This record gives sequence, structure tokens and C-alpha cells, in this order.
Amino acid sequence: MPVLYHLPLSPFCRKVRVALGEKGLPIDLKEERAWERNRRFLSLNPAGKVPVLEMESGDVIAESQAIVEFIEEMAPEPPLLGATAIDRAETRRLIGWFDDKFCQEVTMPLYGEKVLKRQAGVGAPDSGALRAGRQNLSQHLEYIAWLCDRRTWLAGDHFSLADIAAGAHLSVIDFLGDVPWDRFDGAKLWYQRIKSRPSFRPLLADRVTGFQPPAHYANLDF
Amino acid sequence: MPVLYHLPLSPFCRKVRVALGEKGLPIDLKEERAWERNRRFLSLNPAGKVPVLEMESGDVIAESQAIVEFIEEMAPEPPLLGATAIDRAETRRLIGWFDDKFCQEVTMPLYGEKVLKRQAGVGAPDSGALRAGRQNLSQHLEYIAWLCDRRTWLAGDHFSLADIAAGAHLSVIDFLGDVPWDRFDGAKLWYQRIKSRPSFRPLLADRVTGFQPPAHYANLDF
Repeated sequence: MPVLYHLPLSPFCRKVRVALGEKGLPIDLKEERAWERNRRFLSLNPAGKVPVLEMESGDVIAESQAIVEFIEEMAPEPPLLGATAIDRAETRRLIGWFDDKFCQEVTMPLYGEKVLKRQAGVGAPDSGALRAGRQNLSQHLEYIAWLCDRRTWLAGDHFSLADIAAGAHLSVIDFLGDVPWDRFDGAKLWYQRIKSRPSFRPLLADRVTGFQPPAHYANLDF
Repeated sequence: MPVLYHLPLSPFCRKVRVALGEKGLPIDLKEERAWERNRRFLSLNPAGKVPVLEMESGDVIAESQAIVEFIEEMAPEPPLLGATAIDRAETRRLIGWFDDKFCQEVTMPLYGEKVLKRQAGVGAPDSGALRAGRQNLSQHLEYIAWLCDRRTWLAGDHFSLADIAAGAHLSVIDFLGDVPWDRFDGAKLWYQRIKSRPSFRPLLADRVTGFQPPAHYANLDF
């Protein structure tokens, strides 16, 4: 069985795990404490980051977008990028939105400050960063609602990797108890649909030493 | 003709321009002062970033990776991602290396501090960031040389989007005069091959008010 080196709360690993789940591809998950920079892992990915997919053939793929594009090529059903080139461009635009913009504006100020800093032992969260992350989050929740007012799923008529990338990042922020769901009904309705997918369930069961998710985290009807 | 909204020194715009050049696709370049957040541009890309590709059909594609994947789908020859799924995964891994890791460790500390801050009028470059960017650059130049010792081009036997992404970022740092070529022969030999490609020439002719590239910048035999 292929091995996915991952960290339970990494949004990029979660994106790959959900994509594999949607395709029905079984995987052997191995937690990799990437910040310890162990030698064998660095030989798999000199960037020193998770996720890394190691195939039974010995082929190794790093970078979450490279992995999900590879999965899409090897297992095209159900399609997670879109039916036409323009659909796929819109899906990839939104993946970029969440993996780049949301990540810089929300994920790193919250998950980076609270989790990554603690794991790496490099000090306490910066309160200014936490404040900025929570403020930025509101705008992203509004954008999700705006898209869902116009479309069934974020990139169009079908569930796609755009929903997966967005759900992966938001689920981490939700684990940390930082999503004000009561003020963002539109985004909440979308996230309820995401949470109820079987591919998403394993994420809701993740537990990480030193962190206690809020009671609603694993609750489908929160 | 399709329009590419761009900024001459943006590495992500340069990546798209070179990819279009390799495919022989003509484009109407429009400079977009993205930091001014003009309304019409935000309606094309709510992320407010260049590059944005506007097709004659009215379709709009944002995010450099979404654009180059779209170009690859619409104009498969010459292939810029690789012949097999594993080749394409390696190309995309390296695109991620340069667009994410190199960007954070080198491009933003140098181009971000020197150019973006000045354009946005938000202060002088931070000397600590400049120092860190220059230090990190050495490791990346060594990685390029390491890859070129083992392969013809960065991702394998063929010129690919990995070379384009790497060349796009490095060309911006070179424009700023920050690449110590004399200490990195391996990377220099690779970059000489990149620079001599016709698709790269327009980048070497770019001029930006307030910045003067070093004499060797446009010189193919530097």
C-alpha cells in the first residue's frame, strides 16, 4: 500500500487525505515530525515538508498539489478538478486562493502561531498575528458564502479539489476553535456538507497531544 | 488576442510569459499596478494579484499555476510538464519548490523588500530580511547545481515548467543584482542555457522605473 507521510493538523496533508478518500484509494498513514528533519525523510523530500507520498514502486511525490494532480491522473473517477479546461482552471484558481492567500492570511497566523511554533519549540504565539488571522478569516468566510450563493460548490456544479482545499484549511482553524460559525451562516451550511462526506470523517477523529478541539469539532450538526 | 495582466518583475507573471513564449502563443501584455486595487481588475481577480489571463471568449483565469496548467491543456506541444504522470509529478514538485519555498526564502526577502515595499509606499527594505534572502539564495543555487549534475534540466531530460519557474524567480533576483554567479558555476551554466532561449528574451528587455539592472542582466554570456 502507498504510504503518506503526514501531520494530522497540516491542511496540505488533509487536502491529500480527503482527495484519496474521495477516490476510494487506501493509504498507509505515517506521522512524520517534519520539524525534526530526520535524515531518511529528507532523502524523500529535501524540502523537509509533509505531505509526501511514497508509492509501492518506490516513486516518491512531494508537494500537495503535485500529489493531488498525480492522484487525479492515475484515478480519474470521480473527477475532482472539473470537466472542461475552464472548469479545471477555476478549481485550480481556488486551490491557489486557499493554499496561498488563505494560508498566508489565516492558517499561518493561527495554526502557525499556535501549533507549529509549539511543535518546533520556538516560543509563544504572537498576539498581533492571532488577531490579524481572526480578522482575515471573516473575509474568507464571506467569500465562501458569496461563492455558495452563486454555485452549488465553490468551483461550480460539482464538489471539487477547491472544496477539499478550503475544507482542509478551515478544518484546522475549526480544530483550534477559531471559527465564529454563528456569524457566518452561508459558510457554515457549506462546511456542514463538507463535514458529512465520508472522506472527511477521519479528519474529525484526529487528536493531537496538547490540543483539545472544541466540542462541535467532530459534530456534523454543529 | 488574449490579454495577460502582469507586472514586469513579478516572477509569477514571468513564469506565464515564458510558458506562452515556449508554446508560441502571442499575448497582449497589460501592466497592472495591482497594489492600486483598481475596481475593474478586482472584478477579474478578487485576490487582487497578477498574473491574470483574459481570453477573447471572456473567460478569465487567475493564479499562475492555474494559467500554466490551462495553457498546457490547450496547447500540449511542446510538452512542458513531462511525458509520464511521474515526470509531471516531479515537475510540479519543483514548481512548488520555487513558487513556495524559494519565494518565501529568497524572492520575498529580496524582491518583496526592495520592489514591492517601494511600489506600495510602505517603507524601506528591512536589512535583516535582505541578509536572510541572500544567505538562503546560496542553498538554492547549490540545489540547482546538484540537480543539473544528475539531469539535463531541473526535472529530468527535458526543459520544463520547473526550469521556467526557477528561471522566473532567479531572473528577478538577478535583475536586482543579488545573484553571486561567480561562486556558483553549476547554477550559472544552467541559467545561461535558460537565458539563451527565445522565450526568455523579452524578460531581459524589461525595464522598471526606479531600478537599474546590473550590466550582466541582459548579457547572454555573463
